[in-house]
Amino acid sequence: MILAADKGKVSGADIEAAKRIALKYGLGTNVDTGTTKVVVGIKGDFILQQAEDEFRGIGNFEVTRLTKGSYKLASRQFHPSATEIELPTGHKTGGGTLTFMAGQCSLDDWAYVKESAIMAKEAGADVLRMMPLKPRTSPYSFQGLGWKGFEMIARAKQETGLPVITEILMPEDDTISPQELVKRFEEFGVDIYQVGARNAQNFGLLHALSKTKKPVLLKNGTGQNAEEMLHGAEYILSGAWGPGNSHNGDGNPNVMLCARGSSGETTASRFPLDIAWVPYLRQRTHLPIIGDPHHSTGDWRNVTDVALGLIGAGVDGLELEIHPEPRKALSDQKQSIGPKQLEEIITVGTQIFAARKGLALEDSSAPYYR
Amino acid sequence: MILAADKGKVSGADIEAAKRIALKYGLGTNVDTGTTKVVVGIKGDFILQQAEDEFRGIGNFEVTRLTKGSYKLASRQFHPSATEIELPTGHKTGGGTLTFMAGQCSLDDWAYVKESAIMAKEAGADVLRMMPLKPRTSPYSFQGLGWKGFEMIARAKQETGLPVITEILMPEDDTISPQELVKRFEEFGVDIYQVGARNAQNFGLLHALSKTKKPVLLKNGTGQNAEEMLHGAEYILSGAWGPGNSHNGDGNPNVMLCARGSSGETTASRFPLDIAWVPYLRQRTHLPIIGDPHHSTGDWRNVTDVALGLIGAGVDGLELEIHPEPRKALSDQKQSIGPKQLEEIITVGTQIFAARKGLALEDSSAPYYR
Amino acid sequence: MILAADKGKVSGADIEAAKRIALKYGLGTNVDTGTTKVVVGIKGDFILQQAEDEFRGIGNFEVTRLTKGSYKLASRQFHPSATEIELPTGHKTGGGTLTFMAGQCSLDDWAYVKESAIMAKEAGADVLRMMPLKPRTSPYSFQGLGWKGFEMIARAKQETGLPVITEILMPEDDTISPQELVKRFEEFGVDIYQVGARNAQNFGLLHALSKTKKPVLLKNGTGQNAEEMLHGAEYILSGAWGPGNSHNGDGNPNVMLCARGSSGETTASRFPLDIAWVPYLRQRTHLPIIGDPHHSTGDWRNVTDVALGLIGAGVDGLELEIHPEPRKALSDQKQSIGPKQLEEIITVGTQIFAARKGLALEDSSAPYYR
Amino acid sequence: MILAADKGKVSGADIEAAKRIALKYGLGTNVDTGTTKVVVGIKGDFILQQAEDEFRGIGNFEVTRLTKGSYKLASRQFHPSATEIELPTGHKTGGGTLTFMAGQCSLDDWAYVKESAIMAKEAGADVLRMMPLKPRTSPYSFQGLGWKGFEMIARAKQETGLPVITEILMPEDDTISPQELVKRFEEFGVDIYQVGARNAQNFGLLHALSKTKKPVLLKNGTGQNAEEMLHGAEYILSGAWGPGNSHNGDGNPNVMLCARGSSGETTASRFPLDIAWVPYLRQRTHLPIIGDPHHSTGDWRNVTDVALGLIGAGVDGLELEIHPEPRKALSDQKQSIGPKQLEEIITVGTQIFAARKGLALEDSSAPYYR
Repeated sequence: MILAADKGKVSGADIEAAKRIALKYGLGTNVDTGTTKVVVGIKGDFILQQAEDEFRGIGNFEVTRLTKGSYKLASRQFHPSATEIELPTGHKTGGGTLTFMAGQCSLDDWAYVKESAIMAKEAGADVLRMMPLKPRTSPYSFQGLGWKGFEMIARAKQETGLPVITEILMPEDDTISPQELVKRFEEFGVDIYQVGARNAQNFGLLHALSKTKKPVLLKNGTGQNAEEMLHGAEYILSGAWGPGNSHNGDGNPNVMLCARGSSGETTASRFPLDIAWVPYLRQRTHLPIIGDPHHSTGDWRNVTDVALGLIGAGVDGLELEIHPEPRKALSDQKQSIGPKQLEEIITVGTQIFAARKGLALEDSSAPYYR
Repeated sequence: MILAADKGKVSGADIEAAKRIALKYGLGTNVDTGTTKVVVGIKGDFILQQAEDEFRGIGNFEVTRLTKGSYKLASRQFHPSATEIELPTGHKTGGGTLTFMAGQCSLDDWAYVKESAIMAKEAGADVLRMMPLKPRTSPYSFQGLGWKGFEMIARAKQETGLPVITEILMPEDDTISPQELVKRFEEFGVDIYQVGARNAQNFGLLHALSKTKKPVLLKNGTGQNAEEMLHGAEYILSGAWGPGNSHNGDGNPNVMLCARGSSGETTASRFPLDIAWVPYLRQRTHLPIIGDPHHSTGDWRNVTDVALGLIGAGVDGLELEIHPEPRKALSDQKQSIGPKQLEEIITVGTQIFAARKGLALEDSSAPYYR
Repeated sequence: MILAADKGKVSGADIEAAKRIALKYGLGTNVDTGTTKVVVGIKGDFILQQAEDEFRGIGNFEVTRLTKGSYKLASRQFHPSATEIELPTGHKTGGGTLTFMAGQCSLDDWAYVKESAIMAKEAGADVLRMMPLKPRTSPYSFQGLGWKGFEMIARAKQETGLPVITEILMPEDDTISPQELVKRFEEFGVDIYQVGARNAQNFGLLHALSKTKKPVLLKNGTGQNAEEMLHGAEYILSGAWGPGNSHNGDGNPNVMLCARGSSGETTASRFPLDIAWVPYLRQRTHLPIIGDPHHSTGDWRNVTDVALGLIGAGVDGLELEIHPEPRKALSDQKQSIGPKQLEEIITVGTQIFAARKGLALEDSSAPYYR
Repeated sequence: MILAADKGKVSGADIEAAKRIALKYGLGTNVDTGTTKVVVGIKGDFILQQAEDEFRGIGNFEVTRLTKGSYKLASRQFHPSATEIELPTGHKTGGGTLTFMAGQCSLDDWAYVKESAIMAKEAGADVLRMMPLKPRTSPYSFQGLGWKGFEMIARAKQETGLPVITEILMPEDDTISPQELVKRFEEFGVDIYQVGARNAQNFGLLHALSKTKKPVLLKNGTGQNAEEMLHGAEYILSGAWGPGNSHNGDGNPNVMLCARGSSGETTASRFPLDIAWVPYLRQRTHLPIIGDPHHSTGDWRNVTDVALGLIGAGVDGLELEIHPEPRKALSDQKQSIGPKQLEEIITVGTQIFAARKGLALEDSSAPYYR
């Protein structure tokens, strides 16, 4: 349910009244004060008619019951303003600046990892990508360093001061529950959990991530469309799950989406990345959108153009696979980029992002994405 | 590595010699005696040159080292004969008779569940499909009955004497490890574990399933191609996993594949099911192939034709969603079939399967699928 | 517009009355007498209110105005009974028997062509596939024999007595209009025009084919879905075309559809052929449906299974690429089949088709495809 | 065949010698003088050994025979420098400046058409898009104004001084040959021929276009991948065609490619437009690449972002569907943009294009796309 009104038409007291009513009925609230409108989102699946009547009694709010089902917390309708996610360094993803996450596809020698970390830091990256575990199609492929690789996380953070993003996966054994896994990652100093394409609908994991407040970067599954991805985000945002669908609306609000391309092989890409995903997602959700320019094409020669194309289309950031000597990487050698390409993408990408500031759709009152 | 020879060219003693050498080097073996050839597959990732030399010393075997990586235990090259999986009733899936698995999309009232079970039994089904948990795109959709639904499993088995297949999912909380989950299902009397499309690359779960010997039905992920599905099966077959890739080749050999259609929406199907998957898989793997005629089209009016098309193309069985009164089903009403359609599919499908017995490719020495 | 009534409720006089009114307003009619219903389809885009009133005045017909646009003549709603297309030999495609069209991918030496023709005839084929011209992706690939290849058509017909299907293409120069091209093919004795995937929306050609009464086999374009294919058929059926959309409803009623797979490469197929196309098309159209089991997979080893899968799913016939010595074919060597596979497909396919006769959906009053 | 050498290593006399030899053997040449290399491409399919020997005799050229088949004239290997196509106004497409083509989806009233033309001109467009004919999926949809619409072309050119691009289609009858059609368009003052998705492999038409020197904009078919599109361009570039494949290499060199998205419907797009097509094409071909930001998504709200994404990824220009009052357009109302969006795309797009000038890959000696 949303209560919406033009800005001058409601007072702070009206908003407080809405919160009180919500509290009385065990419902959560999300207050969104835009440049022209105020929207109070009411969280909770079952809103009594009596509660609705009381909401309707407040000042000039227009009250709309959202259709049950699908997704709600992830939608722009419920939460019109763009979500900003603050990282430990104070950098805000989704907050009007680009976010660059960079690091090796998988960890190898500390010497390389350190070099990559410094390379990322110096090129201007905001987040360090560190993957001690790698999900692989074949059980016989290199699957990462395992728990011992996690020790490099603290060292790299000390070296650079940058927050770290790591893909959440179960290493070495199958005796850990999703909840314990989330904790274990936290203990190793991981700042952002990445959910890879293969786990995009691993609901046990998504639910475990709804209980932390640390940011989660959710990649789309290769068989998912943009709508299904938004539903996946709703699992984390809502904390709803299981036969009872019971939840108090207190999931994890810090979700970022990452577009990485979908199945449908062509000569140009293994996982075509449709440009229209960017505006499509932005019109429907307030969550930050990160682009992955590597996994769709799998070819380093295409990465600069795809990266700049994503920024041109309006993403809030990029996740980049780098290596000081790409040809020596233990995995994804074909798609990792070296120092020069990284620098170019950050420099030219920042200029493109700046050019987009002139667009009317950057103004939150623009009609075409609300 | 495989040791292969024409049938008359090697003796039982040669085969015993191969087994002894394998044992000495800590390797497993798989002996496959076909109508014209004998193939001894050697399990184990790292085979010393010294071992290879000893194998080459035996009689008339031709020794081939398979390319490292990808999949091996799932391949026809390593295991030429079709795998037969014996169910508790003695019925053999993959063993030259069709296997029909039938039951409700999700469980609802015991009255309906019982009626469905009897309907399946009477129509001639071999396995009962019972799903107390349902994975759903939206967290707010009906997600099944939860643990309490599992109690119906024993009752339905008693009622029909049929083995039960159930999709493995984590219900209600995220504090159970994959290994415990597998055990819990076993305690409730589940005979065949189904891995749904969303978990097709949930490697923690696949690994946990490599430790049981109960049959596993692995569905393809909607973003997977047929090759990726075979790699998923290899995780279960091999028990290999994690950074160490350590395994003794003693995974779970009882894997069935289920083709359910891939992403790439068209007007006809949400998940097009390419007919060529059936021969493609059969040429590359010895594992039984089950077809799912419901989830690709999502429309009950298409189910009979898709089901019979799959049998025409050579599947070993079908998984069918039935309901005594399809319009009252709690989920998948649009794709569930009623008693008459079930009976028709089993009757006509059995005739089509019989007609295919006349094909030369049913002869194991046919050149075109080995 | 359709006039429909239960069978006992209208007389022959009522039908005659409907025809007279149609004639008066310059409209065409299509009378369809099923086992339970009589449907009179009224052809013509603009039906005056006055005409409608007169139709409503006849006996017990229920009069329904179809939504303008899309397709109409191709639909089951307008034309409930299955269309049967009679070939010069008296064989009826769509008339409850399977139709097998077989021949070389492209013509080469007369010796081979003759051998293929006899091979097709002896195996029981109903139509000879003869392609003097081949559309090729690269301008430098072998493009067929050209006009001189057409001379073999008469010889092969004399040899076998079978009607010939040929893909309509513009050979050697670009100075022939579509209308002349259609005539030229007729002069060479072509009995069925094939429209290939690349010309599925070449509207000039489709229009030229609306002016003949000879059968047309329309293949789907690789980027088309099943709905778009039906719209393509409507161009031929209606003769409507161009800025004026002027037509008298007197197009060519003898259209067969051929499902050949769509783009969306996977490991199993270059052009996945979704099984559900068969029931999807059959529920929406009365036109015969032919399956092409070669071009989706491009691999002869898959052809038997895909062919039998198509028959299992309910097609009215198959188009097969054969060669006495497939390895010596000038094009499509990888997907052509030899004598033994041809014979198997026809023998087992005919048995599968017979098994399907037991289905309720074969009864025209079955609720689920009307 | 290509003759290549570092720039200082060959003289003008060497190049003249190569041309003389080519002439003697009936072969064409294409001389490409880059910043670091000189490449002389030798046109002609069959190059005698004797000719090759003579070429090898000239100075320091390295002589490479290209693999027969596929495409050659369209490739970067044969023609390393980017092709610039000069329009009647002197504007060069592919020549380091962006090209904007803009106009209505289809023509309607002259008042609107005139207004659109002036709107395009004032916003800075280089080419006017004028479509008197529209190819439509249904024969009953509005198909354009027909021949009478062509009269507006001269008027709009007079009004704006801009060259005109028009899709080549056969209007109203099927009695015109492709060659006559090309001439008729020329007589009406069309400056650039557009080949739409449906005609991407209409080889008769492509061949007729190989005989003019006027620029052709070739769109990809919705079922084509990027490689197949390049093969289509080769038909126009080479003039090769038909059973004889005879050609003197003197086709039409003025081909532009237009990426418009491929089939594979998702929620975001009807025809997903994979960003990677842009770098993929640019690495393989020297032809200018135009992006179409409308037909993939079909939603005007996405057009700005897709357009800027395409420029970010490196296209040489855009084709835009505009209308003074988009809601009143006769076709494609949902995807046409109005004056403000047009202006924004041109302004911000030009800034993004300028930012890309800083990239190393803009330097023709960059290693990664040659």
